[in-house]
Amino acid sequence: MSASMQTFTMLGLNETSIVDKPIPTPGPNEALVKTTAALICTSDVHTVRGALPVEPGRTLGHESVGVVAAVGSAVAGFTEGQRVAVNAVTPCWQCSYCQRGLSSQCGGLLGGYKYTAQVDGNMAEYFLVPAAQANLAPIPDSVPDEAAVYACDMLSTGFMGAEHAQITLGDTVVVFAQGAVGLAATIGARLLGAGRIITVESLPERVALSKRFGADEVVDYTHGDVVEQILDLTSGQGADATIEALGAPHTFEAALACLKAGGTLSNVGYHGENPAPLQLDLMAFGLGMGEKTIRTGLCPGGSDRMRRIFTLIETGKVDPTPMTTHRFAFADVQRAFTMMADKEDGIVKPLITFA
Amino acid sequence: MSASMQTFTMLGLNETSIVDKPIPTPGPNEALVKTTAALICTSDVHTVRGALPVEPGRTLGHESVGVVAAVGSAVAGFTEGQRVAVNAVTPCWQCSYCQRGLSSQCGGLLGGYKYTAQVDGNMAEYFLVPAAQANLAPIPDSVPDEAAVYACDMLSTGFMGAEHAQITLGDTVVVFAQGAVGLAATIGARLLGAGRIITVESLPERVALSKRFGADEVVDYTHGDVVEQILDLTSGQGADATIEALGAPHTFEAALACLKAGGTLSNVGYHGENPAPLQLDLMAFGLGMGEKTIRTGLCPGGSDRMRRIFTLIETGKVDPTPMTTHRFAFADVQRAFTMMADKEDGIVKPLITFA
Amino acid sequence: MSASMQTFTMLGLNETSIVDKPIPTPGPNEALVKTTAALICTSDVHTVRGALPVEPGRTLGHESVGVVAAVGSAVAGFTEGQRVAVNAVTPCWQCSYCQRGLSSQCGGLLGGYKYTAQVDGNMAEYFLVPAAQANLAPIPDSVPDEAAVYACDMLSTGFMGAEHAQITLGDTVVVFAQGAVGLAATIGARLLGAGRIITVESLPERVALSKRFGADEVVDYTHGDVVEQILDLTSGQGADATIEALGAPHTFEAALACLKAGGTLSNVGYHGENPAPLQLDLMAFGLGMGEKTIRTGLCPGGSDRMRRIFTLIETGKVDPTPMTTHRFAFADVQRAFTMMADKEDGIVKPLITFA
Amino acid sequence: MSASMQTFTMLGLNETSIVDKPIPTPGPNEALVKTTAALICTSDVHTVRGALPVEPGRTLGHESVGVVAAVGSAVAGFTEGQRVAVNAVTPCWQCSYCQRGLSSQCGGLLGGYKYTAQVDGNMAEYFLVPAAQANLAPIPDSVPDEAAVYACDMLSTGFMGAEHAQITLGDTVVVFAQGAVGLAATIGARLLGAGRIITVESLPERVALSKRFGADEVVDYTHGDVVEQILDLTSGQGADATIEALGAPHTFEAALACLKAGGTLSNVGYHGENPAPLQLDLMAFGLGMGEKTIRTGLCPGGSDRMRRIFTLIETGKVDPTPMTTHRFAFADVQRAFTMMADKEDGIVKPLITFA
Repeated sequence: MSASMQTFTMLGLNETSIVDKPIPTPGPNEALVKTTAALICTSDVHTVRGALPVEPGRTLGHESVGVVAAVGSAVAGFTEGQRVAVNAVTPCWQCSYCQRGLSSQCGGLLGGYKYTAQVDGNMAEYFLVPAAQANLAPIPDSVPDEAAVYACDMLSTGFMGAEHAQITLGDTVVVFAQGAVGLAATIGARLLGAGRIITVESLPERVALSKRFGADEVVDYTHGDVVEQILDLTSGQGADATIEALGAPHTFEAALACLKAGGTLSNVGYHGENPAPLQLDLMAFGLGMGEKTIRTGLCPGGSDRMRRIFTLIETGKVDPTPMTTHRFAFADVQRAFTMMADKEDGIVKPLITFA
Repeated sequence: MSASMQTFTMLGLNETSIVDKPIPTPGPNEALVKTTAALICTSDVHTVRGALPVEPGRTLGHESVGVVAAVGSAVAGFTEGQRVAVNAVTPCWQCSYCQRGLSSQCGGLLGGYKYTAQVDGNMAEYFLVPAAQANLAPIPDSVPDEAAVYACDMLSTGFMGAEHAQITLGDTVVVFAQGAVGLAATIGARLLGAGRIITVESLPERVALSKRFGADEVVDYTHGDVVEQILDLTSGQGADATIEALGAPHTFEAALACLKAGGTLSNVGYHGENPAPLQLDLMAFGLGMGEKTIRTGLCPGGSDRMRRIFTLIETGKVDPTPMTTHRFAFADVQRAFTMMADKEDGIVKPLITFA
Repeated sequence: MSASMQTFTMLGLNETSIVDKPIPTPGPNEALVKTTAALICTSDVHTVRGALPVEPGRTLGHESVGVVAAVGSAVAGFTEGQRVAVNAVTPCWQCSYCQRGLSSQCGGLLGGYKYTAQVDGNMAEYFLVPAAQANLAPIPDSVPDEAAVYACDMLSTGFMGAEHAQITLGDTVVVFAQGAVGLAATIGARLLGAGRIITVESLPERVALSKRFGADEVVDYTHGDVVEQILDLTSGQGADATIEALGAPHTFEAALACLKAGGTLSNVGYHGENPAPLQLDLMAFGLGMGEKTIRTGLCPGGSDRMRRIFTLIETGKVDPTPMTTHRFAFADVQRAFTMMADKEDGIVKPLITFA
Repeated sequence: MSASMQTFTMLGLNETSIVDKPIPTPGPNEALVKTTAALICTSDVHTVRGALPVEPGRTLGHESVGVVAAVGSAVAGFTEGQRVAVNAVTPCWQCSYCQRGLSSQCGGLLGGYKYTAQVDGNMAEYFLVPAAQANLAPIPDSVPDEAAVYACDMLSTGFMGAEHAQITLGDTVVVFAQGAVGLAATIGARLLGAGRIITVESLPERVALSKRFGADEVVDYTHGDVVEQILDLTSGQGADATIEALGAPHTFEAALACLKAGGTLSNVGYHGENPAPLQLDLMAFGLGMGEKTIRTGLCPGGSDRMRRIFTLIETGKVDPTPMTTHRFAFADVQRAFTMMADKEDGIVKPLITFA
């Protein structure tokens, strides 16, 4: 193992660079992973723009897979060179929140999200894994890195969105926005028994992916009021469940407005861009008495979550790789990041590979 | 049976009176009940002030018990003179919503709430019961009318608030406002395993009732910021669940702000007074990712719900009668209504009795 | 409407015939349906062999679709000639059980199962529908009778089996026996997010259907111990959930034995053939402490259930028609019944059509 | 810290003694606790009689509280001398089962139960705590050791029995047997909203405790058939939920037989004494279709569980100390164990105190 490694690091507001850092040594409950593939996440774009208060010099990234380079003294059952994935969320599995099954809120609000937010991220040649016994997930032989890497955040987060929507067999479900997480929520809604899946999107590449991943109909918001279009499609009834996968006030409000009494709005979108409070229109909210439920969530972590997603990939029920619209070597990560920030060339997800 | 009956009727905006109407005849699936006792609800005060669009001449009231006077041809198993209670919500039990267990949203948003909103209410000497086979609830001999009448709305609604809060054994639960529904939510939180119940109230009579019904601590909002007081009481952690039982923007916002990641805000309050949207502060909302849940609801109807509440009263686990702060004969119902509207004399609930 | 109709009737033990009966007239809450298509169910074979105590002269059948011929005075929203399906279970939607969501147990244990068991069934030219407002389900134009008829029992029952199994995304699920209900449970497990579906079957036609409907692997019990085969396929771990769709002691026991700690055994099979108690092996049962759950159930009824299943058929997510291995005109129903009883010619479901 | 400690050890089948052993040193994720109080559990009586295969020389005990003597290098937030309790079940909080919330089945069937079964127990002057960061539970100042010690197993297990029973507000619940765990299940049923609690017991001391802890009625099985008595008390309807807290075939069968359609049997009793399979009578089982559920479970572990129970004790909602019928110094533990084995003198729980 060489003594230093390259990392993709946030130097300060709107400033990123490849930076050399020492390869870290794992503590007793940690592991060190040598990265083989990673994805760039829009969250990192938000972070670099100042959405999260982050110390200068923090490594970016939270969607990486690789091979085990070393494990701490209290970590058992892994071998050097074994292919592993690590979820974007790396809980301690010890605290009161983790014990209650709230691993994404480890230690308190949003606390399971440690990479970049609390410690160095993993868009780097090597990275540390906290609570490695629980957070290191072996990748099955039949699942290639370029598929496995989607389990780290996109599939785990999008599926959470669908799980929180409390879908009953045959329900009508609307998914707002078909970026990578929205597409994964569409896959999730299909996996969980939705009868009819309506998605909201206007970019042609994403509309095509949406249909490929399970949308029965796609509503284009450039063609008129989204809520009206959804009510028209549902004989004025609205949806049994809605999933907000953009993180914007207008989609959040539309997701409540087109929801039937008794339905669930599952929020997946990150509402950190705009500081103004979200609004609950009183009629859409049923004056507080419409048996509507609003749920929120963050990507659930842990190897068991990853194992389940890998099973779905292994048996051919899920194939996320069509989301990879662009590919780059790690040396070109800055170019990939810029494209992601600017949403150039119909980009959905750029895959970064490591030598 | 005499041909006419007295009813407490809304003549128009801010205008009510005792009005004579013909005693109605039940259709095949209906029943006619002769009223013995009733409670006045703050909802009716809202209605008379214009919160709901109601035809002039509609009878008010939705919390009444009595005896069976007649049943329709398709209703079986009841006898004339049998003591019965009828829930404020009288679902059809046939529609798509009712079949899915959403009886309060019968036929669509808030649709199970029929008395006054859709048909004549039951602050009257006689009243009709729709879907009587399911909505007529026999009152056990050991439960007096003055206790049974609380099952119609106050206990059923307040308990729903506690049920929606998804309390786990030993949780810390905060109930905002200790009017009758808030007090019932406090009872409900105690019944459902809350470890520590903190209520928010400042009126001395209600503070006393709150402690009697199960509050471990009462926070007085006249003594400082409520959220800060709750955080102080909980070592900065906040509550596992909160119940909003007032229906006001500031209590709704506080109920979200003092909620732990992963917790549930159960809204019971009616937010129809103020037309402005409710606000979701982004930090309190965990940027949409804090695993917080907001649930809303309306009183669940039906005889099975009533039967369960009567069992709790029969075995001494619940006694709602201390909420009855005032008593009136039906002839004085206008006076009782005015007191309720003006919140005079520490009134919580006025009981109306019928000759 | 002619005054009489032909019915397929149980004359006595092991004796059936086509019998003429008067066309019934619907009561206020009933409807009369003119049958267009029906399926024969193995339950009727059990009934004719004496599994249920049934009065001589009772019409058989509970899986029929048709058109509305007449509705009672209290039934609204249907037109004569409208295509409708009626679930095998026809609850009252009024009793304590129905109010609690236990429509299949209407009035008490198994009480929602009325056709043949309590009243005349619907393998007949016309049939009555109790509680028609809730039990008559319109069939969408795009769903042909020969698909819709599977919603009456096979899909509704099989899906219930999968719903009761409490599947989490990516779970390994085993379905025991791939008759029509088992096949529907396989479809249901796929719809509800199972990661890996293992079915147990040996008849080649059913093995082929099982794979077509979603099985990832099929275990043949003629090739060795089923539990051992399942443990071998799962690295000794067993399944997260198992579904018993045969109704036999050995499959029930195997379904418990190959279940992981914390898993759920969902029983769908009818255990009425063999009077001996089922056995719970103590090791398989985790000495009563293995966090295993055993759930049982009967086909859920009602138009909302049917509507959801029709949506799944409309959007192409489910096509049950490959289960129809044989077709007969109603005049030949006796021949179809005999084939079903004797399991001749690889029969799965025979479709009966009416002139 | 002295170099050796006294332990209550199983030498072999039916042979126990106080034995000196070295005081162990905690590994990086462990803690060492100096015991102050403990309870003897009937499980240990079973173990000594051979129910569990245990190596000779294993220390008994799994219900102990004490003070922190030392913590491992990776354990933070505790101070020497701090009062702590440790649950009978000490999960790793890392494995696939723990990650899914099945901490009692850590690593596989019953695997969370480590003390005595897998490692030395804690009826000793000192004991090790695995996964101490999650398993060490601080005891609040207002909760004395003699109350806190009940949280380790009796309350946690009995409450689990009530939680698994899926009680809806106002339900009728039957608890079979009123030993310490059954009494705790009675408390749990009361805490979780049961309307009517019927317990089954005949020993006068336990009948008295049962009423004190919340039983509305106690059925004495020496006065006739238990199922008949329960049906008589419930107008022939049976119970909404039943809790088996003995671990015997006849109570298990009765718990199923007196259960309504749609109800839940929650098993808490340990069925390891009798090797014969448990029997499911087909009628009681609804032929596999009665919507009945059978759940099983083992004491859930972890500091968060303990914290919640302590809150219930702190606010006065639970006081388990009346279960302590006898008290002994550790020097007399053998005498206490013999009394427990022989159920002498109306013993329920003997408290053991340490110098």
